[in-house]
Amino acid sequence: MKIVIDAMGGDNAPYEIVKGAIEASKEFKTDIILVGDSNKIEEALNNYGLDKNNFEIVHTSEVITNEDSPTISIRRKKDSSMVVGMKLVKEGKADAFISAGNTGALLAGGLFVIGRIKGIDRPALTPVIPGKNGHFLLMDAGANAECKSINILQFALMGSIYSKKVLKKDNPSVGLVNIGAEEEKGTEFTKECFKLLRESTLNFKGNIEGRYIPDGDIDVVVCDGFTGNIILKLYEGVSQTIFKILKEEILSSFTTKLGGLLLKPVFSKFKKKFDYTEHGGAILLGIDGLVIKAHGSSNAKAIKNAIKQAILCIEGNVVNSIKSEIEHIN
Amino acid sequence: MKIVIDAMGGDNAPYEIVKGAIEASKEFKTDIILVGDSNKIEEALNNYGLDKNNFEIVHTSEVITNEDSPTISIRRKKDSSMVVGMKLVKEGKADAFISAGNTGALLAGGLFVIGRIKGIDRPALTPVIPGKNGHFLLMDAGANAECKSINILQFALMGSIYSKKVLKKDNPSVGLVNIGAEEEKGTEFTKECFKLLRESTLNFKGNIEGRYIPDGDIDVVVCDGFTGNIILKLYEGVSQTIFKILKEEILSSFTTKLGGLLLKPVFSKFKKKFDYTEHGGAILLGIDGLVIKAHGSSNAKAIKNAIKQAILCIEGNVVNSIKSEIEHIN
Repeated sequence: MKIVIDAMGGDNAPYEIVKGAIEASKEFKTDIILVGDSNKIEEALNNYGLDKNNFEIVHTSEVITNEDSPTISIRRKKDSSMVVGMKLVKEGKADAFISAGNTGALLAGGLFVIGRIKGIDRPALTPVIPGKNGHFLLMDAGANAECKSINILQFALMGSIYSKKVLKKDNPSVGLVNIGAEEEKGTEFTKECFKLLRESTLNFKGNIEGRYIPDGDIDVVVCDGFTGNIILKLYEGVSQTIFKILKEEILSSFTTKLGGLLLKPVFSKFKKKFDYTEHGGAILLGIDGLVIKAHGSSNAKAIKNAIKQAILCIEGNVVNSIKSEIEHIN
Repeated sequence: MKIVIDAMGGDNAPYEIVKGAIEASKEFKTDIILVGDSNKIEEALNNYGLDKNNFEIVHTSEVITNEDSPTISIRRKKDSSMVVGMKLVKEGKADAFISAGNTGALLAGGLFVIGRIKGIDRPALTPVIPGKNGHFLLMDAGANAECKSINILQFALMGSIYSKKVLKKDNPSVGLVNIGAEEEKGTEFTKECFKLLRESTLNFKGNIEGRYIPDGDIDVVVCDGFTGNIILKLYEGVSQTIFKILKEEILSSFTTKLGGLLLKPVFSKFKKKFDYTEHGGAILLGIDGLVIKAHGSSNAKAIKNAIKQAILCIEGNVVNSIKSEIEHIN
């Protein structure tokens, strides 16, 4: 098993990325390829007292930054860590690619460098989100601002396969994001989606309103990429805002500081439960190869967990399962 | 000043509704009309040891429930508390109508009983939402699942007037909900909205991503009613979920219980800051009369605060300000 890591992507590249990769290679006994500027990667390895000869490094001379236009940079920066890393997957020289870099470029690269699974019209950016009663998939979280109902059906199918193969859920439930529980609620688009999902063989549970999403009772939450992106970011935003306010208040007096100290295990447990870095990254489902987008602000732990997620996806044979399921349907 | 309260609407009707109305009439010295089943209203008044003769009660024989179809019930239940209450506003016999009942019916009643302001194509359900650095308006929060860009521009205009007149903000900022900060991000619809807003005389600050909404730095956050409804409900859902989890954890051991006790003032302060009941209800902006939707689970305090909000709207002359601004533009 070989996993390629984009050493140049993300706010904390290359140090935290390299660190996470090293830790994962030790813990999970998987082969890691670090792709990026070899000087910088070696510097990072040196920093952690590691010999560069123990790691496979693929040198690239270019970097796609967050400011780069996704499609243009993928087409022009042929020797970027992202393009080269994805090519290794395309050519079968590696089993997965992980990057914390430019999301748009990663999506474009998925399409242009690796390519879609035949029969899947649009890939979906699929984060695993922590909820009160369990984790759930949100699809699409932003790969496609506008969608057709057939895309939503395909997202639900792919998400159900992922839930079965990786999250080991028996009969994953599917919910359609909507503004009311009743079938007739929402837009023309959601009504069409509802119909397609109801007629499918999936375990469709109907509409899910915003207020119930955080419960985590629905395994695969589907919507267009515009709505999904707002949900993903608001979820994070509300949670961070609440803890910022609580922290300020806790630090405001001696008694509350003491209270905060006593509740430290509670907050740590909560953070572990609700922390995105605990659950890996967002998988680009629908691509004919395994690509995982780690959070832009990923630290070593987040990268390590994304690698763990990649291993589970490889072991669960997610991409091939989607391929054969889609072939079977068509 | 006369404010009509739907005594039959909401999960806690009529007791909590009547209680909130009584408290408001004492605290704010405003005249209250209670509309609904007079037997039940009198029973509630008796319960609080109050003489029915001190309150104006308008008896109605029907109730619109949450299960009723909005448009049909508004057309057929002519003697419902909602229809009769809105008629009082329409006929100039009262200055505002407040209900915690069926949201869809209230929206339909706003359109069919009271009517739109000339020049406003679609009214917007406009809650005041607490953010870290201040409150903001979210428009539309669900009156129109599908919108045109001109609707969004009109929402922004109405929201800016409300912010000036009621929230006393000098030059309210406007943000367009989108999946990226850059102008070219989003759907064809958001691109059109961006253009219209940029060309307007409003204080348009560009796109706002989900993650930054809870900061409360943008005064008027505009989007279509589908997106707004998801935002509103997810906002509440994430916040409630976090506190449910924290509560469970705090109650799990002696030390954490003690910590929780010491942090009680922190949680109370937070709750006060983030509690929707502190900020009244959602105004139906664009209707030729003042209509406020209180939260379905409103208690007496929420109703009292919605009445306070109605008074501020009447004093700020919100409806007429929108009318004259729209006339001026057209």
